[in-house]
Order: sequence, then C-alpha cells, then structure tokens
Amino acid sequence: MAKLGALAELVGGELIGDPALEIKGVAPIDRAGDGEITFLSNPKYLKKLGDCRAAAIILPTGVEAPVAAGIVCRNPYLAFAKILTLLACRRPEAKGVMAGSYVSPSATLGKGVTVHPGSVVGENVILGDGVILHPNVVLYDGVVVGADSLLHAGVVVRENCRIGRNVIIQPSAVIGGDGFGFAPDGEAYYKIPQVGVVVIEDDVEIGAAACIDRATLGVTRIGKGAKIDNLVQIAHNVVIGENTVIVSQVGISGSTEVGRHCTFGGQAGVAGHLKIGDNVMIGARGGVSGHLAPNQILSGAPVMPHRQFLKAAMTFSKLPEMRKELSQLQSRVQELEQLLSAKESTSQ
Amino acid sequence: MAKLGALAELVGGELIGDPALEIKGVAPIDRAGDGEITFLSNPKYLKKLGDCRAAAIILPTGVEAPVAAGIVCRNPYLAFAKILTLLACRRPEAKGVMAGSYVSPSATLGKGVTVHPGSVVGENVILGDGVILHPNVVLYDGVVVGADSLLHAGVVVRENCRIGRNVIIQPSAVIGGDGFGFAPDGEAYYKIPQVGVVVIEDDVEIGAAACIDRATLGVTRIGKGAKIDNLVQIAHNVVIGENTVIVSQVGISGSTEVGRHCTFGGQAGVAGHLKIGDNVMIGARGGVSGHLAPNQILSGAPVMPHRQFLKAAMTFSKLPEMRKELSQLQSRVQELEQLLSAKESTSQ
Amino acid sequence: MAKLGALAELVGGELIGDPALEIKGVAPIDRAGDGEITFLSNPKYLKKLGDCRAAAIILPTGVEAPVAAGIVCRNPYLAFAKILTLLACRRPEAKGVMAGSYVSPSATLGKGVTVHPGSVVGENVILGDGVILHPNVVLYDGVVVGADSLLHAGVVVRENCRIGRNVIIQPSAVIGGDGFGFAPDGEAYYKIPQVGVVVIEDDVEIGAAACIDRATLGVTRIGKGAKIDNLVQIAHNVVIGENTVIVSQVGISGSTEVGRHCTFGGQAGVAGHLKIGDNVMIGARGGVSGHLAPNQILSGAPVMPHRQFLKAAMTFSKLPEMRKELSQLQSRVQELEQLLSAKESTSQ
Repeated sequence: MAKLGALAELVGGELIGDPALEIKGVAPIDRAGDGEITFLSNPKYLKKLGDCRAAAIILPTGVEAPVAAGIVCRNPYLAFAKILTLLACRRPEAKGVMAGSYVSPSATLGKGVTVHPGSVVGENVILGDGVILHPNVVLYDGVVVGADSLLHAGVVVRENCRIGRNVIIQPSAVIGGDGFGFAPDGEAYYKIPQVGVVVIEDDVEIGAAACIDRATLGVTRIGKGAKIDNLVQIAHNVVIGENTVIVSQVGISGSTEVGRHCTFGGQAGVAGHLKIGDNVMIGARGGVSGHLAPNQILSGAPVMPHRQFLKAAMTFSKLPEMRKELSQLQSRVQELEQLLSAKESTSQ
Repeated sequence: MAKLGALAELVGGELIGDPALEIKGVAPIDRAGDGEITFLSNPKYLKKLGDCRAAAIILPTGVEAPVAAGIVCRNPYLAFAKILTLLACRRPEAKGVMAGSYVSPSATLGKGVTVHPGSVVGENVILGDGVILHPNVVLYDGVVVGADSLLHAGVVVRENCRIGRNVIIQPSAVIGGDGFGFAPDGEAYYKIPQVGVVVIEDDVEIGAAACIDRATLGVTRIGKGAKIDNLVQIAHNVVIGENTVIVSQVGISGSTEVGRHCTFGGQAGVAGHLKIGDNVMIGARGGVSGHLAPNQILSGAPVMPHRQFLKAAMTFSKLPEMRKELSQLQSRVQELEQLLSAKESTSQ
Repeated sequence: MAKLGALAELVGGELIGDPALEIKGVAPIDRAGDGEITFLSNPKYLKKLGDCRAAAIILPTGVEAPVAAGIVCRNPYLAFAKILTLLACRRPEAKGVMAGSYVSPSATLGKGVTVHPGSVVGENVILGDGVILHPNVVLYDGVVVGADSLLHAGVVVRENCRIGRNVIIQPSAVIGGDGFGFAPDGEAYYKIPQVGVVVIEDDVEIGAAACIDRATLGVTRIGKGAKIDNLVQIAHNVVIGENTVIVSQVGISGSTEVGRHCTFGGQAGVAGHLKIGDNVMIGARGGVSGHLAPNQILSGAPVMPHRQFLKAAMTFSKLPEMRKELSQLQSRVQELEQLLSAKESTSQ
C-alpha cells in the first residue's frame, strides 16, 4: 500500500489528482480495478482508457488523456516496474542455516544469510551478507557469492566460480560446468581438462536451466548487468559485455567476445572465436559466423542487415516461381536468338 | 499377465484366436516372442509378419493377414499403448513422507501421498491424494498439486503455482521461474518483478528441463491435456490451448496465445504477443512471426504453407546456379537488344 | 610440478633443451610466464612466439622456431591436454557415503565410492569402484553406474538405466526421462508408457542439462566415447555411434540411428527414424530430414554439401535483387518479342 503522491516521487513523475490516493496494487490496463494503478506505455492503446477502471494511470509525457488520477513520466514502463517492486516484492526475513542443509565448517557466511534445506555449501565457500540459497542449491568448493545475491532451487555452481553482488539465478541453472573441449586422438577423443572458472559480475540475471561453462584456462565472464534468459548456452572462455541481453535458447560458442549493450533474440546462435562489437542487435534465430562491427541491427543466418533480411525472407517463398520464370525466360531468349540468327542467314 | 480375450475387451477390438491365451508382455514386431503381443499400425509393414514370432498381433481394421491370434481394431497404436499400460505399468505403493524430506508443518497432504528423500515442501503447500514427489523435488510456498500427479526428481515449482490432477512432470523441469522482463533505464536494465503464477491444468505432461515461466501479472496457462517435450521454453503470460503438443526445444515468446490441438515440431519458435488459432501444425524449425488463423499446416521461417516451403527449400540449393543463369541471360538479352538496335540503324 | 623431460616422454615428443626444467603449469601463449608451458598448434600463430614468456613451448613437428625449451610432437593440442591433465587434475580422495545422503540398503557399492550429501541412491542400484556422486544426484531404482564414473550435482538417472565406466555427466543432465510418445485418442492423447531404458557406454561425456530419453521398448544407446554437449536432446530409441560428437542444443528425434565418428554442430536438428552413416559432419544449425550415406560434410536445412550451402547462403541476401532483375528481364524480353513480331508483320 502506498500513496499516489509518494509513487509519483518514487518514479520522478508529475502527479495528476489527489496525492493521498491509496494504491494497493498494480494490474494490466484491462483488468485493473479499485485501488490499482496501471500503465500506458504506448499511445496506440489510448482508446483502451475508455473502459479502464483503474484508480490511477501512469502515462507517458506528452500524451493528452482525460485522467482523474495518475502519474506522467518519460518512461511509464520503468515507472511501472519500480512501483510493482515497491508494492509487490518484499525480501523475506533471513532464516540462517536451516535444518537439512549441509554447510562446510570451512565456509564463511555473511550476516543475514539464508540457506534452505537440501542446499550444500562446499569447502571454503564465501557467502556475502544477505545471500539466499533456495532449497537444493549446490555450491562446490571455493565458490564465492556476493552480497544480496539470490540463487533459486536446484542451481549448481561448480568449484571456484565467482558470483557478484545482487545477482539472481533462476532454478536449475548450471554455472561452471566443464567446457566442451576434446583433442582428437585417432578415432577417439581425449578430454581437455577445464581448469578455468566462471565469473559473474554484479547485477546479472541468469535464467532457468541456462548453462554457463567454465573456461579451459582463465575465465568465462558475464559482464555487470547482463541478462540471460532460460536454456541459454554460454560456452567456455566466452566474454559477455555489460548490460547485454540474451533471450531464451541462444547459444554462444567458445571464446567469442560479445560487446556491451548487445541484444540477441531467441534461438540465435554465434560461432566461436568471434568479436561482436557494442550495441549489436541480432534478431531471433540469427546466425553469426563472422566478426561484427558495433552499432548494427542484423538478422538471418548468416546475419545481414535486418531490413535486407526481411526482404530476402519474403522472397524466399517465391523461389520455385522464380525458378520457373527463369527457365521460361531462357526458352524465350533462345527462340529470339534463333529467330534473329535465321534472319541473319536469310538476309545474307 | 493378461488373457488375450480380456485385452481385446480392454481396447474394444475384435478377437482372433483363443481368448484364454496368456499375454505377458509387449514387444516390437521384430523382437516379440513367446507370450508377447505386438502391433502393426501401418499396412506397409505387413511383410514383416512373415518373420514375426509374437504370440499375438494387434491389427488395423481392414487389413487381411493370416494371423492365428490377435486383436483387430481401428487404432492399433492406441490399443498397444493401453495394453502396455496394463501389462508394464504399476503405480508404486504410497510411502508417505520419507526420512530425509522436508515438509512444512503448514502443508496439507492428501491420502496416499509419497514424498521421497531430499524433497522440500514449502509453507501452505497443498498436495492432493496420491501425489508422488520423487527425490529432490522443490515446491516453494503456496504451491498446489492436484490428485495423482507425479513430479520426477529435481523438479522445481516456484511460489503459488498451481498444478492440476494427473499431471506428469519429467525430471528437472522448472515451473514458475521469473519471466524475462526488464525495463531499460538508460544503459542498464531494471528488473520487472514477476508476480504472476503458472497454472498447469489436468492431464498435462511436461518434459525434462522444460521451463515454464510465471506471468508478470496474471497467469501463464498450460491447457488441459497439453503435452510439452524436453527443453521447451514457455515464456511469461503465454497461454497454451488444450491438447496442444509441443516437441522438444521449441520456444514460445511472451504473451502469445496458442489454440487447442496445435502441434509444434522440434526447435520451432514463436514470437511474442501473437494469437495462433486451433489445429495449427507448425513443422520442425518453423518460425512464427505473425498471427495465424486456425486449421493450417505451415513450415519455414517465416512460416508458409508446408508444401510451398518444401518446394522453396528444394530450390534454395539452386540459388547460385539461378544467379549465374540470370546473369548470363542478362548478357544474352543485352546482345539481342544491341543486335536489333544495330539493325534498326542499318535499315533506316 | 613435473620435469620437461618427463612431459616429453608422456606425450611421445622430442625434447628441446634441459630435461630437468621444472614445469608447474599450463597457460595460453599470450599469458604463459615463469615455470609454465604453452602450445602452438597452428603455425599461423608463429609470430606470437616473439612476445611469449613461457618457460617451454609445445610445437608441431616440422615447424622451425628458435625455442630454447620445449617439446616437438605431431599433435600439440593432444599433448597440451595430456600435460594439463597431469599438472592440473587430481581425482579427489574417496569420502564414502557422506552424511546427508540417502543410500538404499539394497544398493551395492564398490570400493572407493563417494556419495555426497543430498544424493539419493535407489533400491538395487550398483555403483562400481571409484564412482563419485556429487551432491543432489538422484539414481532411481535399478540403476547401474560403472567404475570411475563421475556424476555431477543434480544429475538424475531414472529407473534401470545403465551407465558405463569412466563416464562423466555434467550437472543437471537427465538420463532416462520418459520418451515423448502419445497415441491420439480423438481430440486428446493417451500416454504410451516408456518402459525401455538408456544405456550409456564407457568413456562417454554428457553435458549440463542434456536430456537423454529412455526407449519406449528396448534401449536408447549412447556409444562408447561419444561426447554430448549441454542442452542436447536425444529422443527415445535413438542410437548414437561410438566417438560421435554432438555440440550444444542439438536435437535428435526418436528412433534415429547415428553412425560412428559423426559430428553435429550446435543447434542442428535431425528428424526421426533416420539412418546417418559413419563420419558424417553436419554444420551448425543443419537440419537433417532424410537418411545420409557415410563420409559427408553437410550444412543447411535441409542439408546439402557444405560448399554448396555456403554459396547458396551467400546468394540468399541477393534474392530481392534477383527478383527485380528477373522481372526487368521479363519486360525486356517481351519488348524484344514485340519488336520482332512487328518486323515480321512489316516484312510480310
């Protein structure tokens, strides 16, 4: 529960209506009711306001709307996120090391830590203040987890990997599994030991069942603020730049270095040993097989400028027709050639 | 062990031979032997019957075959499944709350429940009659699991998600992980709290390591009877219709609504905020980027009618050849044009 | 720590310099320093040797380089792997059945076994000598694990599956989940019991969160020495040949048989009921929809010879241009035809 005036202040927006209005929750525009605030991020949904029964509305600057109570701000979506955080999220009270968990005597635990049942904390692990390990998390020996990080149930972090502060890892993600490295030895393969680590910097989020492999030698690094979705594969020795966003089921192959503030659409794939510049955006399913300069929007496999891909993809379904037309054209040109050649002979 | 007559009755088929024949197992047509029943679902395998040593055979209606013992029915594959269930599957006896599991005192457990070692049942969880939690399942606070549902080892269900009756979840699936939602805040991203839930209706099956994200607000819903394979990604606020089948490694993006009785082939992908009608079939690797009317069979990326895709895909490998032919044709036409233009000049 | 002479002997290479030189570690060519050995597998990096501060270098036979200490051998990458194994990997001492694990009294454990906390070993399980189960591994009833195999945290092996000797399974992999089999029964689907098993032969490695489904009837088999990366899907009744390599996020559909020594690039997909010959190499994202003869390098979807695919893929982005050129050409040919037809009429 919060007052509308306080919420406007929280998001740095301009108040419309009574600052004392009590807001108790957040809801989508078509479902919000008494005591609830909603948001309009895109002016194209303005017409939905007619039926809206929300107590207050967050509007983007510059939109004219007959609203009795609300907040006007530059980024309604961000404001919505901040208000939802305030109203709906509360960090649970610390519960300490709970019965049924296994914490090595050599581990170092900060203040206000929670270790749920079934979690296993290995030798010499260091947990910062306020760390929460949900049930059945496994931290191998030598793992470090920074303050206020939250590891959901079933997460596994292998030996010596380091996780920063304020990191969130969704259930069953695997941090520090062996990289996929084998040296051919005749018909068979010899395993290359993977003795490096994974370093996850502050403010990163990792999705459910995502896999971040440890380096062969050295470090696989996920830069500060990066967001990685479910079932993503990050191979050994990859470096992901700060604030880069990687959507579900993407795969990044070994030793590739991705810049800052890139975005990879779902199911995209990147080959190994590449350098991807900053601010590169790859569409869903994009396939990257070469180095990429910064500041590009690309799609397709192999990737090309996004607009070019859209045109090419549209044309793809016409291929059989084009082939037929091409063949007909060849016949017609041949006829013309024969006709002219016949004329030549006649006229000689 | 069952008598052939009883099996014929079970599947609503017509008996051939001795109703008292004892059947002890089911095996593939080329491996079945004494006491075993096999099935022929496709008449094209009729010639395999010659070498078949099975005690009895399930045949489709209308197929003429010199079989001494068997069952004739409309759907031999379904009959095979039902007979296999009878002969090979037995629900284990309930074992109660086993040593080494952690069940909150505030949880409510039905009759005949089994909670294996290492499983963690949170506060206010409700388990219906006959629920089985294999080892190391984690149910966060407020989860509800309907009667006779079976959760395999390592499954995680996060807070307040609701699972129906007779649901099967394969190992390490993650239900209710946070949706992937972040609001840009300058260079960095601000996490949008994911305070909705997942609702899985009755008779659903979810594959190993599949991830079904909770809604931002509201519900991510998997409709009654839907079947979801391993490593599938279902994003926040998605709705999957009843009896829809989603094969391995498919990804469905946020807020998309899929109709009833659809089928998605392996590795297909669907963009967000789309509506897919009932009875839509998407081929393996299909990429859906727009709304889809019901009753279609589509393939390709972006999807097109399946037959058209097959032709276009066949033509794709001819592209370099086509380009060369096109270029040659341009030269030939240019020559013709020059020839005619020269003639024009001469004749003037 | 090892002497250079001993390392040369280990890898069957020719020694350069002092055999008594002490080597304490392995590092990449641009980071190696005092006491460290590095390797040069590709002569194109020869120029890096100028700045290299390594104590010794592993060189490929036939490369001329002014090196004071090192080893010359045919396969420097393999030599690197063997030396790294010697210097950096030590099998931990056996710890027995640790507190907080749950081992059925009917299980049979070999010598020198380690079962970490949170692991659950079912009825009649057999663990060979030297097996290590990291925390929270679950072995259902009847599972067999061969000597010296290593199962990382959170791995689940379902009932009656058999794992060979010297197998490594990365965290959270799922072995023996139900195959995805359902018989249509009108609008709904009837579950086909999956009563077969998975057999994993010796020397296999399975990646994190990979899923290998049990057979409907019979066996899903992973051949000796095969290497399977993270998040790979192997469906029911698949057979993978010896020493085949399957990179991350590949999916192999039901009942397909893959030969020996094949390689599948990342995110490739294979349809069901196919036979793939030995020594087939499928590029990243390749889509296999038909049987394949042995000894081929293929890419694309559907797959074609790799070189042909590269050319076709390059041409794809030119499609809109080609279509325009084709259309222009049609107009030009039509004009020529009309011109000639007009001449015909005039000359008659």
